[in-house]
Formats: sequence, structure tokens, C-alpha cells
Amino acid sequence: MGGDHAPAAPVAGALLALAELADTLDIQLVGRPADIEAEMRRNGGVPAALASRVEIVPATEVIEMGEKPSAAIRGKRDSSMVVGLKLQAEGKSDGFVSAGNTGAQMAASTVVLRLHEGLTRPAIGTLLPSDRGIPVVMLDAGANVDCSPQELVQFARLGSVYAEDILGRANPSVALLSVGEEPEKGSLAVKEANQLLAASGLNFVGNIEGHDLAHGVSPRGPVDVAVCDGFTGNVVLKFYEAVAPIIFAQVQRHGAPASAVDAVAHLYDYEQYGGAPLLGVRGVSIIGHGKSTPEAVKNAIRVALLAVEHRMSEHIGRALRGTPANGANGNGGVPA
Amino acid sequence: MGGDHAPAAPVAGALLALAELADTLDIQLVGRPADIEAEMRRNGGVPAALASRVEIVPATEVIEMGEKPSAAIRGKRDSSMVVGLKLQAEGKSDGFVSAGNTGAQMAASTVVLRLHEGLTRPAIGTLLPSDRGIPVVMLDAGANVDCSPQELVQFARLGSVYAEDILGRANPSVALLSVGEEPEKGSLAVKEANQLLAASGLNFVGNIEGHDLAHGVSPRGPVDVAVCDGFTGNVVLKFYEAVAPIIFAQVQRHGAPASAVDAVAHLYDYEQYGGAPLLGVRGVSIIGHGKSTPEAVKNAIRVALLAVEHRMSEHIGRALRGTPANGANGNGGVPA
Repeated sequence: MGGDHAPAAPVAGALLALAELADTLDIQLVGRPADIEAEMRRNGGVPAALASRVEIVPATEVIEMGEKPSAAIRGKRDSSMVVGLKLQAEGKSDGFVSAGNTGAQMAASTVVLRLHEGLTRPAIGTLLPSDRGIPVVMLDAGANVDCSPQELVQFARLGSVYAEDILGRANPSVALLSVGEEPEKGSLAVKEANQLLAASGLNFVGNIEGHDLAHGVSPRGPVDVAVCDGFTGNVVLKFYEAVAPIIFAQVQRHGAPASAVDAVAHLYDYEQYGGAPLLGVRGVSIIGHGKSTPEAVKNAIRVALLAVEHRMSEHIGRALRGTPANGANGNGGVPA
Repeated sequence: MGGDHAPAAPVAGALLALAELADTLDIQLVGRPADIEAEMRRNGGVPAALASRVEIVPATEVIEMGEKPSAAIRGKRDSSMVVGLKLQAEGKSDGFVSAGNTGAQMAASTVVLRLHEGLTRPAIGTLLPSDRGIPVVMLDAGANVDCSPQELVQFARLGSVYAEDILGRANPSVALLSVGEEPEKGSLAVKEANQLLAASGLNFVGNIEGHDLAHGVSPRGPVDVAVCDGFTGNVVLKFYEAVAPIIFAQVQRHGAPASAVDAVAHLYDYEQYGGAPLLGVRGVSIIGHGKSTPEAVKNAIRVALLAVEHRMSEHIGRALRGTPANGANGNGGVPA
């Protein structure tokens, strides 16, 4: 029931996902049954062959986009957000996807699913398009504004498992976002994190700067994961989401054909990434964009499916206990 | 003698500036006389009418781009950087422009020119192209990685005077870069800075997010000045400098004509801005890009000239003592 286009986009997206991925997927649609059923009819209903794959789970309340997260999840225990997450805690589902209130999803996921041992907060792992042609996992993208060096190292472990399990990157390279490539450049927290990461067993490639993030490559090679506090990450993400469309519009106004602009704009389209995992919770919670389209919801469900199939949460738990992240898949792997 | 193309670009840029601005400008070229004279000959020499406007001030040493700032300025007292700044301290010049080692210029400017009372560090005020069509002053762009709330307020005062004196913005609006527009969103330092700014007498328009920075406009109106710590500012600036050319190249590869791309790329060209003032020093020190072309050097000189003509440093001193920045020009102005 969450998101700017709810329940239309989530229902339509779920039906798209079912049509494409039915062999591996059952879907629970959580919310007001009458609203959900109306949306299903509007989308032509569910084909008979897939009917057994869909279940409507009633939840009478809705957390609105502007509500304060903690008050909302305390006050609305029968919201689609809380009910949907509880299914997972009770073993009735394997993953949760929402395009609703991000803060409420973070808070409810933390309370209902709980965090892996040793974590105090979850982190949002987001994908940034890069000139390398494949995205960089940047985290934290906004869950934590003030971060300790130890938290930055935790983000590195979370991001490394994400890059391996969801993106299929073997032995992912992890970089630390800073203001200079030398280890002694950066804020106090970043300088200490650099030291800790060098001894972490991760495939740590050192500090990178803002331009390396855009290129997806640093002077020391490709960057799979970029670690930063949630303040920097959130500013960069929102800045990026605005700058690319601004430049596309400017180029088009100056005579570039729509075909050229569209071909590139596609690379920057959040829709294809679907959703950002909330990393660190014991389970799967995928944060979709508030303005998610059906296509974006479908892709967010795909991300959830990959996280479940690859046992990402389990691997994260192991990585946090100190097993090198690059061996978390049971594939062996050489520590950096 | 500093910069990737020194002394060729600084000498050529100085001659360009002289040709355009001779009525208001004398130029001192600081460095190895033989090298400077050779460059002047290569540029066709100085027209007789302008000869009295140019002076070569000898300095035997050069601070290289990769040198550690504090060691460099201690060890190379006869460098073009230190000698050039000392001219100002001795009353023999009004402003200093360099495309050399940024860290060394910051350190040498702080030591030689000294800071205005109440400041512990200077800040770099940079101009970000925005969709509004005119740039946003963003500071700090990298001089200070860990910033207190009080320092963020100082940056706001510095940026406000810069926007008024150099960009001619009357009663410039000042925003605080954060992760949400509500005053309670942000890091601890940003949340406290929000409170202090609301009571500062500046034209404070509240928090803005990354996308507002790209647009140059927030939900509460135009943004002339965006305040952030030097870590965030440096990351955003370098990210921006990389992303725009990446997108231009992509659009061109997909069939956009060079004319359309060039017309837009021009808006993102650092050359037109010339240089970023090091704000807070008692005097004028303009930081040029290491890769400055003659055109960029000329524009950096133009920035220095504006700072001198508008008595920017004096206004900054007054603003820091508590006179509202929007009245610093003696134009009156209404406190926010």
C-alpha cells in the first residue's frame, strides 16, 4: 500500500514479476483486500495457471509517505508495512519489497526482522550507474548520517556480500570514498576506517575520490563497492538522480535527437535497478523508490529473489562474524 | 610557476587579462625570470602601451603539484607561491592567483595573509553550474573535512559575501546541504548549524537536498549559497566534474551532434569560472584548477579583480564580526 502510485504500481509490478518468474516465486500482496482486488481486476486478473501463486494478506492500515517513521510503526501495527515484514519473521515469507515510506521501512525492518549480531543500524546499499558500464554499490545511501570508523567497516562487509550475491561480482573490490587517494586524506572517521579496512580481509583497494565514483574505476582498478557515511551517500545519490535528467534535457534543447538521449537516459534509469536492499537485517527487505513504476516494482522483486536464492542475509551474518566476505558463498576465494 | 601547464598558461592568461582589463589592472608575474620572459616572447611579447603594466618578480623555487603543503611552504620560502603572497602582505599587490598546488596555496595564504578574527581555517568557495542557469556558490569545497556547527555558520557568512561581491546577488539566499529539508534532518553538526543559521541574520532558506543543489532551487526558492563541510563539498564537486563529461561522451556516442553537446558542455566548463576564492584570509587568494588554460587563468584574474574592487575581504571581516552580510556592501538590505 506504500509509494506514490500505490496500490496500482505494486500490484501491477507483482503481476509482471509473476508472469516472468512464476517458477521460482509466490507472491503475497499485503494491504486492503478490496483495493488490491480492484487493482488485480484492472490488470486483467491473474491467469488461472498462476492463481495459486498469489495470496492477499489483509492489513487495514497504511503508513503514509510523510509520516514520522517511529511513531508510524508503533501506532499502525496493522499497516501493510508491519504486517508484510511480520510474515517473514514468522517464517511465512522469504522477502519483503516496498515502495513506501523509506524511514518507516528501515525502522520496521529493524524492529521486526532484527539486525545481525554486532550491528547497531542497517545500511542502504544503492547502485550507481558508472562509466565502467556496470554499477557501483554505494553504501550507506542514507540510513546513517553520523558514522563511526567501525560502522564504515561494517558497511564494507555488507556491500561486499551484496556485490557478490546480487551482482555476481567475484571477490568484489571495496573502496572508501574520501577527498584524496592517500590513506591519510579524509575526515577523522574515514582515516581510521582506511586503517581498519586495510586489515579487514576484504578486497580493499583504498580511498577513491568523487570522480572515481563516477567512472567506477580508480587509479588502482575497478570499484565494485564504495563505502561512505549515509550523509555523503544520500547527497551524492540525490544529486546524481537530478543531474543526469537535467543534462539530458539541456542536450535535447540544443538539438540532440530524442533517440540519442533516450539511449543514454536508460543507463541512468532507477527502474532497471528496482530497489535497494536494506543490508544488515536478518532477512530480506528491499527499498523501492517512492515513485516506483510497475517495471521498477518487478525489478525490486527480482532483487529480493536473488537475495533469497543466494542466502544473502546468511552470508552477511557470516561476514560480520569475520569470515572473509569473498569466501561467504562457499566458493573459496583468496583474501586480499 | 604552479599548475599542470606552468609557466605557459599563467603567462598567456595574464597577457589575455591585460589586453582585456588593462585600465584596471597591473600584473606581477612571480617566478623564474628567464622562464617567464621566454613565455612572454612565445606569446608575442607585451605591446608597448601595456609594458608598464607588467612586472616580473623573481622567485627561484617552485612548489610541485604533489608536494606536502606544510613542508613545501616551510622549505621553499623563495617559491613563487610564498613570494607572490608576500607581495600582498607587504602592500605591494592587491590579489594573488595561482593554478598550483591547492594545499600549499591554502597553507601559504593562511600563514602569509592570516585569517580574519574568529576563524580557524579558510574555506574554498566554488561555483556549481545549476539548472537555474546561474551557478550556486558551494562551500566548503575541500579545505576542511571535519566541521563544527560554528564553522558551517562561518562558511555561510563567507559564502554570502562572496555571492554578493563577486556574483552581484543582492541579499543572497543561503541554504544548508543535508539529507532532508526538515530542520531535524542531518548529521549532528548540520542539525545544530540549522538552528544557528536560523538566528544568524543571514537570508537562510533552510536545508536543501542533493537534487536541490543540482537545480539551484529548493522548494523554498532560489539557492545562491549552499553550505556543507569540505568532505561532502569535495566529493560532490569532483563527482560533478566527472559526471557531466561522461554523459556528454555517452550522448555523442549514441548519435547526438557535437554542436548540441558542445553548447551544453560549455555550461559545465570550469574555464569560465576561472578560480575559487580562498575565503576567510585577509586579502585575496584565488585557487585555479591545476589544469587551467590561459582562458581559465584570465577568468581567475577577473575573479581576483572583482574581489579587490568590491573589497570582499573587508566585507568578510565585517560579516564575521556580526554585521549582516547582506548589509556588508553598505547597501542596507533586509535581514532574513
